[in-house]
Formats: sequence, structure tokens, C-alpha cells
Amino acid sequence: MDNIEQLLVSLRDPSNPGYRRAVAHALTLAEQGGAAGEQLAQAVFPLGGHALTIGFTGALGSGKSTLVDQVAAEFRCRGKRVAIIAVDPSSPFSHGAILGDRIRMQRHSGDDGVFIRSMAGRGAAGGLAPRLLEAIAVFDAAAWDVVLVETVGVGQGDTLVASVVDLTAVVLVPGLGDEIQTMKSGLLEVADLFVLNKADLGVERLHTEVTSMLELSTSLHTDSAVVPVLRTIALTGEGVPLLVEAIDTQRVSQLASGQWQRRQQRQWRQRLSSRMREWLWEQQLAPFLAAEEETMDQLASAIARRSLAPELAMEQLRNLWRRREV
Amino acid sequence: MDNIEQLLVSLRDPSNPGYRRAVAHALTLAEQGGAAGEQLAQAVFPLGGHALTIGFTGALGSGKSTLVDQVAAEFRCRGKRVAIIAVDPSSPFSHGAILGDRIRMQRHSGDDGVFIRSMAGRGAAGGLAPRLLEAIAVFDAAAWDVVLVETVGVGQGDTLVASVVDLTAVVLVPGLGDEIQTMKSGLLEVADLFVLNKADLGVERLHTEVTSMLELSTSLHTDSAVVPVLRTIALTGEGVPLLVEAIDTQRVSQLASGQWQRRQQRQWRQRLSSRMREWLWEQQLAPFLAAEEETMDQLASAIARRSLAPELAMEQLRNLWRRREV
Repeated sequence: MDNIEQLLVSLRDPSNPGYRRAVAHALTLAEQGGAAGEQLAQAVFPLGGHALTIGFTGALGSGKSTLVDQVAAEFRCRGKRVAIIAVDPSSPFSHGAILGDRIRMQRHSGDDGVFIRSMAGRGAAGGLAPRLLEAIAVFDAAAWDVVLVETVGVGQGDTLVASVVDLTAVVLVPGLGDEIQTMKSGLLEVADLFVLNKADLGVERLHTEVTSMLELSTSLHTDSAVVPVLRTIALTGEGVPLLVEAIDTQRVSQLASGQWQRRQQRQWRQRLSSRMREWLWEQQLAPFLAAEEETMDQLASAIARRSLAPELAMEQLRNLWRRREV
Repeated sequence: MDNIEQLLVSLRDPSNPGYRRAVAHALTLAEQGGAAGEQLAQAVFPLGGHALTIGFTGALGSGKSTLVDQVAAEFRCRGKRVAIIAVDPSSPFSHGAILGDRIRMQRHSGDDGVFIRSMAGRGAAGGLAPRLLEAIAVFDAAAWDVVLVETVGVGQGDTLVASVVDLTAVVLVPGLGDEIQTMKSGLLEVADLFVLNKADLGVERLHTEVTSMLELSTSLHTDSAVVPVLRTIALTGEGVPLLVEAIDTQRVSQLASGQWQRRQQRQWRQRLSSRMREWLWEQQLAPFLAAEEETMDQLASAIARRSLAPELAMEQLRNLWRRREV
């Protein structure tokens, strides 16, 4: 299976008995990165561009997982093949996600049109699962129509997810109070849709709050389409068909206005920029510093003895770096 | 006061009526960074190297703050001037720390030999307060004998603090159970002392656990001094004089064995390395990418249209970067 060519062939044919195993294997390769992961990423890229990717973000206890499952079911009713990625940015392990997976697996068991994958976060360093984009690209190449990305746990993954998906749904529930106020600005910037879940608990006040936030923000941003505010009860599925309609409408109107294309361009510019940064560190600076280990030791030792100011040591290192580049 | 020369003079003389205000101002400058912060950092560096810096790390609810206050009081009894820095890595704001500060201020009020400062973390990016090292350097230059650094809140600050202090005390309390197991490896590497606080709750089992962890680890590491395990009741101050003795003994024995010097050298090597990384990004790559904005846009747009593979775009950017360097 480690032959990428062969893997690609299996990936492209859902009717093949080895298809799901091929998808799982490709996801693992993509997650692991390294040479094989890189090779795979390059191979799947030209095959993609068809899947609609939607991020679901919101506080713990907002019923996000249940909602994502209902949205998946609704897309299934419409004949779409749906992949779900659960990302837990707060944990280097995926215990929680794996547990949730099992419950989910049962819910969608026997349906070949659903694929569930959980990814662990980067742990202490924070942030999203490092290879989330690559995992999405695998699903995209493997002819999944919809990829739902759900952030589990808490933290910055909440807004970061917007950098890897086409549309971001922000899930809110009544009673969060001040917490929303502090999240407000970040959430507003990334939200393409607001979902007020647990609508049976009474979301009038929340609706008013979100709507007035949105009115304030559209007066500031001109590039954004209207952001719809939907009400759902994830447990019963109420409101979910309308939510899926709204997702589709949002996609169409953003494509028509060019907002869609502008976001994709912006996302790729950001990705190129952070890849350059990684390359510069991993391939250039880190080897340079390793080669200059003796100098580093001497400088560090002199600073520790207070016989050299750190700024002068930096000057020396910068000069060494510049001379090396020529 | 923005005249650095003048500020330095005020900083060096604790009997000067403007001294505490000068320290506070220098800390603010150091925290803000920028040109003034950099200038200050350079100016205070040769004046420092005398203060003993001790980091206190451990889980929420371990009674760390109370312990740090008691340790400060004990150092005061020994005629030392003590600065306390409370770092909250989990928050971009310092609300919690500021609240804690007020209680502390009262406890040490009227004592010119104590200075308390709280620093916020980097927020979403995680990690320690970005200018913690610079703040310590200010206290050092301002003739404080001891700087106690306490991480408030949760997260990675727990072990990161070890990279900026001379000695790290890991504070544990009974009943944390499995949590310690997962923290184990990271904590063991940074601990110069273990403090079992709330010893009145019964710490026999915890003591046995920590001791056996330590035995296992000393068989792996040869460079470490014996790591003492102390028992305290921070609320009453019991065990705190012995803890302060142990800190002193640890300092003396690490100085004698050379472990102290090796750590300082290692810390400075790490700092030079991360400063080079910052410099390369901020002064070199970021301006380069800004200058190549049009190219970035074209590449990103071509990738978004799937007419260019990201890897080829990266190749172009790397070539542009290399050509620019020559």
C-alpha cells in the first residue's frame, strides 16, 4: 500500500472493496507527514477542489457533535457522501475524540457514505491538528462531497479552523453570557453562519445579541455576505434542513460575489507564508545553528559569564548567517 | 524618565525616593519591548548576574501562591530583598493575577523589601509572558537578591518557566492522581526541588511516588544533582525554612558540580537560537514576503484555481528568496 500510485487508484474508486482501508491509510500517511506524506499531498492536490468543507466551532457544551451528526445525516438524505473530522486542539492524545468516535460510528454504522476521523492537536504548542489541511485534501481527492470539521475541546482551534475550511458555522447556545462577549470579535470575523442550538431553551435574547453584533460588524466590513442566523435543536434534528439550505445558499452567493475566491486566495497566501517560515527554520536556520554549534557554545558561555552582551552575540550570529548565504 | 541613563541611576539606588517608581517604569518598558525595551535590556544586562531566580510551578490548587509568599517572607527574615513575578500563561489579560496581587500587596504592605509584579501570558499563542526574561533582568539590575517566578493558571508555562530561572521548584499536593503521571516526564526534567505542599493532608504516598520517579530518573541522567523532596504546609509556614535551606544547598552544590554553569550556558544557547529565529522571521522573511506581495497573490490565486501545485509555488518562493540573499 505504500506505493502512492497504487494508493491513489484505490482512493478514487469508492466501489472498490479496499476503498475505505485506502482512505484510512492515506489519512494516516498525510497525518504522519515526512517524505511519504509530502509525496501523497502532492499527488492528491490536482485531484481535489470538489469537496465542500464546513467548519463547526463553538463552546464546549454547545451540542456541536450532535449537530454535526445531524448535518451529516441531512447531507446523506441529499445523496452526498460525508466525511467528519473531529479535531481536539487541547489534547496531544485523542482519547476524548476516540470515545466520541465510537458512539458516532454506531450512529452511522453500516452507512458507507459516512467516514469519521479524529485528529489530535499539537498538544502543548496549541493550535489545530498540524496536518488537518492534508487530511481534508485526502477526503477531497477520495471523492467525498462534504467534509465537516469539528473542533472538540476548547481554545484557539475555535477560530483557527476557519483558515482551513470553505465555510465556518459558529454554534452558540443560550446562557453562555459573558463568554460570548470576549469571543465576539474573533468569532464574528470567521463566521459565515451562526447556529443557535438548543433553541428549545429559548434563544430570543441570544438571537437579538448576535443580530446586533452582526449589524455593527457589517457596517465595518464590506466584503462579507449576509451572515444568516439559524435556530436548531440538534437532539431532534429540528432546523437542520434549513441550516443545510443556508449553507448551500451561502456557498452560491459567496461564489457569485467573489468572496469565496478571495478567501481561498487569502488562505493559500497564508499557507505559503507559513510554509516558507517552516522551511526557513527547518531547512536553513536549524542546520546552520547545528553547524555552528561550537560558536553557539562559546557565545552562550561568554554571555553566561557576563563577559559578552547578548546583543553582540546576536550581531556575530547574524553576520555568520549572512556570510553563509553569499 | 524615558532617558535610559537617568532611569538606570534611579534603578541602582533603593534608598532613592523614586526607586520603586523607577523599577515599575523599567518593568513596563521591558515588557513593551520595541526600541526602548531593547535599549533598556542592553543597558541592564552588564549590571545583573547577582539575583537568585527561582521558578515555582505546579497544578492549580497546589497552594503555590501562598507558598511563594511564605518563601518570600523567609528570605526577608534572612535579610534578602525579594521580587515576585506572577505569570499567567493562560490569559492575555492579567485579571486573575491582578486580583491575587491585591491580596498579596496587603500581606507585604509597608515592606520595601518586597516587590510584586504580574505579567500576562501571550494569550492564544500560549507560552510564558514574552518578556519575562527581560523583567527578571530589570529586577536583577535593580539589586533585588531573590526573584521568585510563579506560574498562575494552567498549561505549558509549567515547564517553560525552567528556561528562564536558575532553580525550579515543582509544587505537588496529594490527591492529584493520574494527572501527575502524565506530567511526570516534563516535570522531572526541570525540577531542582520537589515541594509536597499541604503536607497535613498526608503526603506519604505522594512522597513514595515522587521518590521512586526520581530514583528511576537519576539512573538515566548523570548530570543532575540530588533532587530533594520537601514537605510544607504553606498556610502555616511549616517546612518553609527548611525549603529555603534546601534552595541554598542546591545552589551551592550545583555551582560546585558545574551543573549551574552548564544550565546557564544551555539557556543562553536556546535564547540565541530563538532570537535568531525571530530575527529571521521579523527582519528578513516578513519584509521579503511583503515586498513580493504581488507574486504571493498570483501564486495563491493559481493554487486556489488548482492550476498550480503548492509545492511548485513553494519552489518559486524559495528561489526568489535565495536570489535575494546573494
